[in-house]
Amino acid sequence: MHKLIKIDEKIYAITIYDQKTRYFEGIWRIPEGITYNSYLYLGDEVNILFDTVKRDFSKELIEAIRKVIDPKDIDSVVIHHMEPDHTSGLKDFLEANKWSAEIWSHPLSLKMIKAFYKIDVKFRSLKDLETINIGDEEIRVIHTPWLHWPETIMTYMLNRRILFSGDAFGGYSIPEETTDKILDEGYIRAIRKYLATVIGFYRPWIIKNIEKLDRLHIKPSIIAPAHGKIWVKDPVKIVELYRSWAEAEPINNKIVVIYGTMYGGIENLVNEVVSRLSEKRFNVIVYSFNEEKWDCFGDILGDILDSKLIIIASPVYEGKILPHIEYLINLMTRKTDSPKEVILISSYGWSKVGGKYISKLLEGSKFRVVDIIEYHVTHDPKILDRIVTTIDSKSEK
Amino acid sequence: MHKLIKIDEKIYAITIYDQKTRYFEGIWRIPEGITYNSYLYLGDEVNILFDTVKRDFSKELIEAIRKVIDPKDIDSVVIHHMEPDHTSGLKDFLEANKWSAEIWSHPLSLKMIKAFYKIDVKFRSLKDLETINIGDEEIRVIHTPWLHWPETIMTYMLNRRILFSGDAFGGYSIPEETTDKILDEGYIRAIRKYLATVIGFYRPWIIKNIEKLDRLHIKPSIIAPAHGKIWVKDPVKIVELYRSWAEAEPINNKIVVIYGTMYGGIENLVNEVVSRLSEKRFNVIVYSFNEEKWDCFGDILGDILDSKLIIIASPVYEGKILPHIEYLINLMTRKTDSPKEVILISSYGWSKVGGKYISKLLEGSKFRVVDIIEYHVTHDPKILDRIVTTIDSKSEK
Repeated sequence: MHKLIKIDEKIYAITIYDQKTRYFEGIWRIPEGITYNSYLYLGDEVNILFDTVKRDFSKELIEAIRKVIDPKDIDSVVIHHMEPDHTSGLKDFLEANKWSAEIWSHPLSLKMIKAFYKIDVKFRSLKDLETINIGDEEIRVIHTPWLHWPETIMTYMLNRRILFSGDAFGGYSIPEETTDKILDEGYIRAIRKYLATVIGFYRPWIIKNIEKLDRLHIKPSIIAPAHGKIWVKDPVKIVELYRSWAEAEPINNKIVVIYGTMYGGIENLVNEVVSRLSEKRFNVIVYSFNEEKWDCFGDILGDILDSKLIIIASPVYEGKILPHIEYLINLMTRKTDSPKEVILISSYGWSKVGGKYISKLLEGSKFRVVDIIEYHVTHDPKILDRIVTTIDSKSEK
Repeated sequence: MHKLIKIDEKIYAITIYDQKTRYFEGIWRIPEGITYNSYLYLGDEVNILFDTVKRDFSKELIEAIRKVIDPKDIDSVVIHHMEPDHTSGLKDFLEANKWSAEIWSHPLSLKMIKAFYKIDVKFRSLKDLETINIGDEEIRVIHTPWLHWPETIMTYMLNRRILFSGDAFGGYSIPEETTDKILDEGYIRAIRKYLATVIGFYRPWIIKNIEKLDRLHIKPSIIAPAHGKIWVKDPVKIVELYRSWAEAEPINNKIVVIYGTMYGGIENLVNEVVSRLSEKRFNVIVYSFNEEKWDCFGDILGDILDSKLIIIASPVYEGKILPHIEYLINLMTRKTDSPKEVILISSYGWSKVGGKYISKLLEGSKFRVVDIIEYHVTHDPKILDRIVTTIDSKSEK
């Protein structure tokens, strides 16, 4: 399924709905789905396609284009980013286009097109900050490296004030509204999850590139990303959200609790902690790994970004901790590294090694372990009191 | 659901079907389900229950017992292993039993019963190798540590030659036949997966404890484990299978291929490799992590145990490899460590770091990396030839 909408007198957005990818990049579970967005500029002198889509959807892209123009009449394709979710449909498009279009992209892209798709193309290398005149419009090229590969660019239509932003400012999910009539909580979660999982490792580059846009006085009226909603109303908001998540700016009363449990012991404790905290002013988000379900690692990473305090709980397992909790901690230090306080909880049957083990996993990261609470097999009320007191003291600062 | 069958003139097996646990121990995905087996001996002088079940199923256990005897008339409960999947139903049982039964178990168990369930019980501490006379029968106690906790025992009915083996010789799945009429391939996979995941870390203890049973000249006619099928026909077979998996004895032509792929590049290569190998004499098992599915980690661990050669393939990801492939490698070194040959395959876009990274993860384990094959973005036929030639040479030895 796809949607074709006019976002400007001369510009169409083509949004392809992907509801079959269960693991984005083969890694991140996305029950919420994802979209791939291409944009079509039909000008007086030149017709331009901004990005293609994943090969699985190239027929749909071509169908959508045909509704407004013959693909043969497209003169150039701007590639903002060579990742296959935006470029593996390129060859199919070029066939429908009779190979007449010129590819406009970062100099690195040409070699990649050949390596990825074994095709030869007409190619125009774009320089950082160059301006391309296309009749009634000018396009500014902005090199935005590591958002999220090194060859990434954005393009900006100077007169229309439309910023084609590639992966940046995009998100997971298939939002009901293609454009941001309302910035709802559900969609905020989907963007934050996307940011944490896909470009979390490159967060310093989000900040650098936003600063670059600022320096260039780019004040778009529309931001058109390659995934998710198009920001037609107050696009400053999405830039600010991206910046705050890149900086892992905490929301003061937000606590994320992540626990693994083998037979429900830690689960009982966590339930009691949450029930005690809910009487207070806290916003507690709980993620569980138990006999019935494993929550999505990506959701957790997203929620860590703007949390104030993180609680990690695992029983000791074979002298270490639960292996999937270790996996998650490794993802955390890689994707959401930030100076947040962490409380560790561990139960043990034979030896008290869990807290130390997790502390070691966090070594070298910015996370700061502020308390380690360990108990033998079954917790008693004192343990519960201690956890609640610690949280109280930590979150009041 | 449960099954009550008579496995001897005086002994009933009660097999509870658990089809709701999705992650065994909160860790291992088991779409195949699992059973919990209790056994009931109705003797002339004494009635004994061997193990209880998980609390979720304690009502069912009591119902099943009532079909043949009033729970009040059970004189003792043998606990082979304190893990909650066999003991969390103990309190419920003791209530139905009016708290009259004495618990017979390893000395360590008493403290654990108090710590786990906050109950006081009548307790008889069992000594390693002691023999308990119960009228027409004698029960031999065998301490079998780390199968899979330190307090684990087996009990052996000397006259009947029935070995109650606890977790050992058990498996996942809900086999159609409770007893081993046929040792089918599907069930072999389920036992091997169980062994690798639950007691893989303690494999040396499987060997030690089997040697102990040998030394004691224990030659059971029935092996009655706490999970899965009851071995009534040729029980030597399951002991031999357990021993060979504990030793990670390879099947000569068996190759396990594990790959993660982001956009299908490595998947294409693996498909070509498998198609080339299938023309030869190899038994190739392929596990994939792609956009559509993630295979079960537990299945992979099980299959590694008796494989001859392992192929691990991952693209480079953020200067490392795919995080879930790293997770799997960590599980491998922990649960299936064995001197097997490993071929590494990695594709890269920017730098050739995958092979080295995986080699490092395998350092300190018994796995031996015999070839590292790395290619830029898209493989060419030479890469395919090299992989097939390497496999050919390695598997002929």
